[in-house]
This record gives sequence, C-alpha cells and structure tokens, in this order.
Amino acid sequence: MTATRDISKRIASLRAAMQRHGLSAWIVASSDPHLSEYLPPRWQGRQWLSGFTGSVGTLVVTARFAGLWVDSRYWLQADAELDGTGIKPMKVSSNAAVAYIDWLATNCAQGDQVGADGRVLGLASVRMLQDALAACGASLRLDLDLLDEVWPERPGLPHEPVFEQQSRFAPVARSAKLDELREAMQRAGADWHLISTLDDIAWLLNLRGSDVPYNPVFVAHLLIGPRAATLFISDGKVPPQLAARLAADGVELAGYDALGTQLAQLPAGSTVLIDPRRVTAGILQSLPSSVRRIEQINPSTLAKAVKNQAEAELIRYTMELDGAALAEFFAWLEQTLARRERVSELTIDEQITRAREGRDGYFSPSFATIAGFNANGAMPHYRATQSSHAVICDGLNLGNGLLLIDSGGQYQTGTTDITRVVAVGETSPEQRQDFTRVLKGMIALSLARFPRGTRSPMLDSLARAPIWASGVDYGHGTGHGVGFFLNVHEGPHGITPYLLPEPQTAMEPGMVTSNEPGIYRPGRWGVRIENLLLTVPAETTEFGSFLDFETLTLCPIDSRCIERDLLNPVEVDWLNRYHTTVRQRVAPHVTGAAASWLEANTRPI
Amino acid sequence: MTATRDISKRIASLRAAMQRHGLSAWIVASSDPHLSEYLPPRWQGRQWLSGFTGSVGTLVVTARFAGLWVDSRYWLQADAELDGTGIKPMKVSSNAAVAYIDWLATNCAQGDQVGADGRVLGLASVRMLQDALAACGASLRLDLDLLDEVWPERPGLPHEPVFEQQSRFAPVARSAKLDELREAMQRAGADWHLISTLDDIAWLLNLRGSDVPYNPVFVAHLLIGPRAATLFISDGKVPPQLAARLAADGVELAGYDALGTQLAQLPAGSTVLIDPRRVTAGILQSLPSSVRRIEQINPSTLAKAVKNQAEAELIRYTMELDGAALAEFFAWLEQTLARRERVSELTIDEQITRAREGRDGYFSPSFATIAGFNANGAMPHYRATQSSHAVICDGLNLGNGLLLIDSGGQYQTGTTDITRVVAVGETSPEQRQDFTRVLKGMIALSLARFPRGTRSPMLDSLARAPIWASGVDYGHGTGHGVGFFLNVHEGPHGITPYLLPEPQTAMEPGMVTSNEPGIYRPGRWGVRIENLLLTVPAETTEFGSFLDFETLTLCPIDSRCIERDLLNPVEVDWLNRYHTTVRQRVAPHVTGAAASWLEANTRPI
Repeated sequence: MTATRDISKRIASLRAAMQRHGLSAWIVASSDPHLSEYLPPRWQGRQWLSGFTGSVGTLVVTARFAGLWVDSRYWLQADAELDGTGIKPMKVSSNAAVAYIDWLATNCAQGDQVGADGRVLGLASVRMLQDALAACGASLRLDLDLLDEVWPERPGLPHEPVFEQQSRFAPVARSAKLDELREAMQRAGADWHLISTLDDIAWLLNLRGSDVPYNPVFVAHLLIGPRAATLFISDGKVPPQLAARLAADGVELAGYDALGTQLAQLPAGSTVLIDPRRVTAGILQSLPSSVRRIEQINPSTLAKAVKNQAEAELIRYTMELDGAALAEFFAWLEQTLARRERVSELTIDEQITRAREGRDGYFSPSFATIAGFNANGAMPHYRATQSSHAVICDGLNLGNGLLLIDSGGQYQTGTTDITRVVAVGETSPEQRQDFTRVLKGMIALSLARFPRGTRSPMLDSLARAPIWASGVDYGHGTGHGVGFFLNVHEGPHGITPYLLPEPQTAMEPGMVTSNEPGIYRPGRWGVRIENLLLTVPAETTEFGSFLDFETLTLCPIDSRCIERDLLNPVEVDWLNRYHTTVRQRVAPHVTGAAASWLEANTRPI
Repeated sequence: MTATRDISKRIASLRAAMQRHGLSAWIVASSDPHLSEYLPPRWQGRQWLSGFTGSVGTLVVTARFAGLWVDSRYWLQADAELDGTGIKPMKVSSNAAVAYIDWLATNCAQGDQVGADGRVLGLASVRMLQDALAACGASLRLDLDLLDEVWPERPGLPHEPVFEQQSRFAPVARSAKLDELREAMQRAGADWHLISTLDDIAWLLNLRGSDVPYNPVFVAHLLIGPRAATLFISDGKVPPQLAARLAADGVELAGYDALGTQLAQLPAGSTVLIDPRRVTAGILQSLPSSVRRIEQINPSTLAKAVKNQAEAELIRYTMELDGAALAEFFAWLEQTLARRERVSELTIDEQITRAREGRDGYFSPSFATIAGFNANGAMPHYRATQSSHAVICDGLNLGNGLLLIDSGGQYQTGTTDITRVVAVGETSPEQRQDFTRVLKGMIALSLARFPRGTRSPMLDSLARAPIWASGVDYGHGTGHGVGFFLNVHEGPHGITPYLLPEPQTAMEPGMVTSNEPGIYRPGRWGVRIENLLLTVPAETTEFGSFLDFETLTLCPIDSRCIERDLLNPVEVDWLNRYHTTVRQRVAPHVTGAAASWLEANTRPI
C-alpha cells in the first residue's frame, strides 16, 4: 500500500502539470489502448496516482477536487484505500466508467478544458464525454499523456513471448477464422477492420501470451485487409518460427507503434469496420477522414463467445480436472482444520493454486483468488494481502462462520471460474438462510429455459427474484461470459441489468456464462455461489427454438450451510442431481482423501 | 371492410402523387401530431390507404412495392385484411414502428427522396430515419402531406367539447400541477415547455374530452411559459365558463393552428423543454434555431404515472364496481348458455358494456372489447365484427372450448382493463394446461418483490419463466402502464422486453401496470389472464427499499380451466387468497344471480 503522503505528492505533481497545460480537470480511467480489464503496468496510472488497487474506477482531478468513481463492488475497498489521501470515493450504484461524466457536466464551467489520454479512452466514452462537456461550454483535449510527465519510473511495454495454441486445443484453424471474418467484413461492406481488443486478437490468431496476469493475451493491434493482415506488436515478442507460420496465413508483423502510420495510409474512399466500444479515440486519430468508418461490434467478439462442440467437449474435460483439484483442496482444508493447524486466507490462495498446478494443461490462475472469511467475504472483490488478511484457524482455535472462495484456472483446454462458500466451525441460522437464498437464485437460473434470441440481461431477474423475496439484493451482475483459455470476463452477452439488452446480447447456444448470485452483509459475511453454464438447445416447439443451460462446473455445494426447509422439492431435486453428476464425473480423477471428501460431500440431502 | 379494388385504386393514386413530387417512397405511420395510440379519423390515413384496421402498423409505398410492417400481435389480422390488396404484410417480431427503417435503408438508392408527413412523425423516429437514409445516400422530405391530395373526403379535426374533472375525482388541483411542472422546468433550465401528448395535457389541466374512442382526451397542444400557458385547441371546444376557470389558473386559449406562429415568436436565447419521443418533427419546424432545446422526458409523463393515495383509493373503489359489473355479466353468460340461448362474440361485447354502464361514474369502454372464442382468442388484438364473428351457442348447441374476454371501462374514478378466459362446454387437457401455465406466469409476477429503482422491463421474464419452461412464449409485453380516467396504455414504464430499461422505466410506488401473460395457438385457442397491479412499498431493509404489487382487479379466475397438479402450494395459496379478497370486496355491490355466481366462483380450490 502506497503511503498517503506519496499519493498527495503525486496528485500535486499532476495538478502542476495540468496548470502548465491550462487544463481544469484531468481524467484517469482504468484502461489501456486495448480497453483491457487487466492493465499492463505501464497503464496502471490510476492506481499509481490514487493508491486504489481495485480493477475498475475512474479518477478525476481538478485544482481543488480529486474523486474516484467506484461501483458498489468497490465501495468498502475505496473507503479503506483512499482514507487520508484527500481523494474522495465517489460511490455509484453501477457503471463507474461513465458516472463521472455527469459530475463533470455539472461542475465544469464555460471555457474549461478537460484533458485525458485519448489513446486509452474508448470511442463510445469519448463521444459521451464530448457531448456532456459541449453542453456546459467546456472542451475536451485528448492528445496529452500527463502520466509521462509526472510518473518518473513509468514502466514500458511488456515483452513476454507470444505462443501458439496447440492445434488439438484450437479446433478452428487461424486461416478459417480469418476467412470467416473477411466474409463478415464483406457483408458489412468493409475493406479493412481494426481490432484493438487483446482477446479478440488472441482468439482470431490462435495465439496466446502472458503480458498481463490471468488473461493469456499479448499487447498488439491487428489490422485486417482484404487479403493480408498486419499484427502490430513489440519487436521480439513473436519467435521467428511462429512469425513464419503467421506469414503463411497472411499475417505480417509490424512494430507496435507503426499502427498510426499504417492507418494514415489507408486508401481514400476505402471503408474500415471498427467497434466503437472496442477501439480508443486516440488510436483512430490517425485515420484519414477520407476513409469511411463502418461501426459495428467486432465480428470476432460474437464468434469467440460461441464455443463450438469440440471446444465444449474440451471445457467439460477441463471442468473434471478443475473439480478434482478443488476436491483435493477442500479435502486438504477439512483435514488441516480438523488438525487445528494454522490456515489463513493467504494459505487458501496458495493451496488452491497448488492443487490446480498439478493438473493437465494448467497455465495460470484465471484471476486473483478471493478467499474471504466472514466480513472479508462481504467484499465481492476482496483480496487478502500479507499485511491484511483473516485467519481461519490460528493453530489452536477454529473460527466460526462462512469462508468464501472464488477462484479459477486457465488451462489450455478452457478457463474456469468457481465460487463456493463453506462452513467453518459453527454457522448461524442467518448465515445459512443467506446461503440458501443465494442457492435458490443460482438454481432458478440453472433451470431456466428461454426462447433463442432472448437478450441475456433479461435473465438476470430470474436469479434475483428468490433473493429479492427476502428484501435482499446484490450489487453486481449475475453472470459474465467466459473465454476459452482466454479472458475470464468476455462479452458480448452478460446476465446483468447493467448491460443494455441490445441485439448482440442475445443468448446463443455455445455461450459460456457464469451464474453467481450473492448476498453481502458488510462487516459480517458474504455468500456467493458460482457455476459456469453452457447454453444448449433445449427443444423446438411451434413457438420456436428454446435454449437452456448445462452446468459445466463440477464441485459440491456445502450442504451444511443449507436450511433445507427453505428449498422447494424442485430445488432439492436439482441439488441432488447436480451432486450425482459431480460425483460421477470427478471421481475418476481423484484418489485418497479427495475421493473420500467427494463421496461424503455429494450425498443426497 | 374496404373492397380490395378500392385499396388498389388508393395506392395507385398515392403513387401518382409521389411521382408528381419526385418521391421514391412514401411512409404512412399510425400516428397523429400528438403521437396518440387512438387516432382521430383525420389521421387514420394508413387504414384508409391499406384497409388494415389494426392499431399499429407502418405502410411504406414505393413505385413497385407496398408493405405494411406489423408486430406479432397483428400477423394473423394483417394476413386476412391485406389479402388481395397487393400490400405485403411485413411481419416483425416487435417494434413495427421502426423496423421498416432497416428495409428502407437496404432498398433505397443514392439520390432517392423518401417522403412522410413530418407533422405526425416523432422527433426520435425522424432522427433514426434520417440517419438510415443518409447512410445509403437517400434523403427525407417531411413538409408534404400527400393524404390531403389523395383522400377526397378526408375528415377534419374533431370538435367534441372538453370538460373538467369533478374536483373530488381530481385530488391535485390544476394550479398545483402547473406549479410542480414549472419547478421541474426550472431544474432542467427550461423557460418554456411544449407538450403535444394528449394524455399529458388532459392530466396536467384536469380536463377530459371525447375526441377519440376509449381515451378521454381532446386534441390540443400546450405551451407552458414561466408564468402563463397557452392551450392550442379548435374554437368552440372549451365552454366559456371553463375557459374562464382556465384563465384564472393562467391558461389561455389559442387556435389549434396558432402553435406554429407562437413557437416562431419564442424569444431568441430562451430555452424550451421538449420530449423527443413525445413531440413530432413537423411541429418543431417552426421553432427558431436561436431557441435552445432541452431534451428530456415530459415531467408530466412521470408524474401522471405515479398515482397518489387519494387516486389509489378511488381506483380500488372503481375495481369493486368493475368487479360487480363483471360478476353480473358472467352470471348472465352462465344462465344464458345454460338455457342454450344464442350467444355470439358480439353479444358478449354488448352485454359486458351494458353491465358496466349501470355503474357509478362510468364513462365509456377503455378499449374495444376483445371477445374471442377458441381460434379467435389466439389473435391477441382480435375484434369481432358483424360480418365475421364466432358463435358460442347457436340457440341449440353449445360450443366447447375457451372464451377469452379482454375488456375495460373508463370511470371518472379510474380506468380498468381485465382479461379472463372461461370454459364453455368441454375443455381439453391441453387447453387447461395452457390456462394453468399462463396463470402460473401471472401469479409469479403478482408475487414479485424487487428493489425500488428496478427497471420495469427487467420484471418481464418473471412472468414468462413458468411459460418458457414448457417451450411456450407470447409475442407481446407482459404489462403496460394504465392511466387514471385516462389512457389505458401509458408510459413511461412497462413490463416488456420491447422497452429499453432506461432510467425513466424504473418502477415507482403508485404506478398502475397490467399483468397479462398469454399463450396463443393460432387456429386453436388463446389464453390471457390479466389483472391490474398497483406498485406499493413492501419493506425497507439494509439493502434498501423494496416494492411489491397490490392486485387491483377483482374478478374470479375460472378454476374449471385449471390443472391443479401443475400449481405448486404457493400458487394455490395465492389463488385462494385472491378469491377470498374478490368475494369480500365485490359481494357488497352485487345481488341475486351475480351474488350467487360470485360466491360459487370464489371457493377455494
């Protein structure tokens, strides 16, 4: 944790730079030129400036004010981390990435100039920002990067090597994906297509990298033309052999910074497909006005979300391995606590990672493990640190309550993301009621059947209704898309009220989505139960095609935390059938204590 | 029904007019200068030109093509009514009011000029249209009204008198509503506010009229200034005494056509609040560019939707009267069918209206009664006519199946809208299953509890989930807002996936909304069960304020149509409690056969 003194100095130095350039306000978004969720260190300026380590939040600094906009997932964390810095936590119920715009519109005066690094601001956000500022007579300047001026040791670009997916784990060849993409470009009337989003590029080229933690992507832009494509990437990242293979598929390499020059040279009168939500305003500044922009969602974003049958089969296998790793971990946890050995939230993180590491095709965690005991579990994006973590057993006494563990793995055969809450010592009836309410919500969504074409946000209330019934709600979406050995959060769909139900959010067979309702009682405990779901065809009737969900995740749900009276027969049946499946599919992958734990924890209730 | 020969002639004459003006396409929307749902005859040009009598649909005519865009509610009706006219039914799953824009964008060529009467096209639609046409190099002309040229006996403006609500039925005085509106204008920074929507004007001024069937509104525009307001309305519609009362509240009268002149004279530099979805592009053409437009939803649209406690109490009373009228009607139906007297869909319409007419404060039906037996019930917006209607009992033999009756009344104390399906003769297990599925959906929404601020469209899937579970869906929203002695369809909320869940769609205490899931099996039968719901505060917890629904409608649900095994205990309990309430509250208002029928039809199942 950075000292609050250092934060104050950094903000002061930013204010000095703002004054030099005549800026009334400076915006630091949590973003990079690729609009990534996890930022390479070079673009972690918001964290360096504010000390706030959460993944989403926007900092706005004026001469007299500094505020950080955070959504409800980060309220508690922002309170803690911003305390004493002079930066005000600006708590919004959702969409912290744009809520600051309203504040600017109210607080800017005629003639004010507001600045931000345009190369990291999405085109769609810049448009909203420009409109809002224009309405109050202020203007927006996007060509400066004040971080370069105030951050003495700003990191450079990452230079981890890029590697190719094994062909048996990449069922569709790169050339076939490029062909399909060009067909989509043709349908849209586009000669060119610029992709800046790293997961789209990795998916399209069947390449992976290690430039950021958790997401196996690499920093690059990709420009696809009618015949060839150019990958803009730092020198030395693509091994020569791989470069040759890419060249054979019509993909040439160029320097990361050469994109601007090449965009500037696109032929007048040609057309370029760009996704206004997946490309930054700064990147497009080099595009000549004589090139017509065709705006639509990146075709690869939709294609990537729909897993084919071979991928689905690999994911099912991955879930068995992940389930086995979890059975090993939970067996270890049970035994270790039974022996009253010391276990902290940090130990949990180490052990769960260790259990996964032994499994076939394991690559890395898919996000930072959240292990939160009682009150820490009430922070949906909590992370235990050396200096601040809870102890579940101090080597003598066992704590009482709920332990929430949200973790996942990147395997070459798929990406996992699972949350379980387990009882430690004694649990209270209130804790078990919350657990059971969350379970009811999770089951309701698991059992949903719905017409093909249903916009995924419309399914959110199905999981929420049984929780709402008790006057309880949770401040995050119910489900996010999950990549295939790729980002653990991906669009274009999402079971969340925070996403507008636009056409591209429609549920399609092959989509993988998390199902993770929760209940968070600040200072007391948190419950979240998360499985991944595969959307599959259910039936076709005179009313059209219907879809439903296959639960992918294979890990027991702790029945010690269930208040059985709150479950109806349909819910009990779901749970017992789920546990039977878990036992049957995970058992072949475990032995010894893990096998016993699995057997004991999948018995019917 | 207009002969198809006449329709062909009318389309030919329109094409001739298009040619005179150099237009490649002409659009006839189902709209008027007030964007009303029910159009005064003068603006029923789409029906006159096409012969299609449905309430929503857009006609597009080019030199070689004529098509009418209709959503799924009207697919069957459009097939029937357009047959032989040469006009193609363009079936879209929803939003027929804008779907034609995509077609135009695909079918227009560079240089094409597309025309429409701008005075009846909403500003928001015109913007979409302009963007779409610009993208293909076509242009939009809005200053012509070809209907004037091709419709020899086009009706004039309606001249029914305007009247004032009785003060005991208008709990908030006109002057108080105007004060509150001016406060909202001030908050928005607006000097002026133009209202074109007739229900907003009627609500704000506590006036009602009879210019269109079913909606007790009158044709006018209202311009509100900092101190005074001007009502633009045809001469002679406002009686002198009422005019004097309006003047006392600062509302002056001017001719309907004087609006343009007055808008043109608004002071340069002043600001005017307009709702881009509730004002037409043509009306705004007179507004000088020196007047700054502030665009937001009409404050009255939100205020009108939230009924106060006095209104809610009047509505509850109205529901008792309406329930009594329905008990009388259903008792009559049962006795008449038992005697095997002739009953057709038309008789139903007459009898249900007659039953309501006797009740306190009754004004008119709130929409055209839908009485559909078996296959006719499968058309959600069916209306029986003299030339085409089904017979339930021919005076000798009784039919078998389901009779769907959707009807409502305008009372000075509120507006009702109710659908019931009753068994006639024998029903099949499939019919009863469909009935029970719809009932489950209706109950699920009735029982919903949700956080204040939940966007109403997000509640739609709660009613749909139990119906989706059987691979069944319905092609309309689950619920619409309902006015107070005002339009039976009103915004800004709606429990429907066809409405984007924008902030102004949030559910608020005091809103009245229909709850009407359905199942339609074309050519076989239809089921819809509809109650009106009042949104009420439920509880406040550490998670915020929660709302739930009070069911307003008081009429038994036909338990002969229920497959009891398909209901769970919670659903059975809801039904029995509902029937108890219906019996207790309606009984004091009925005697004789109606009282016996009520008693027999509210017994526990």
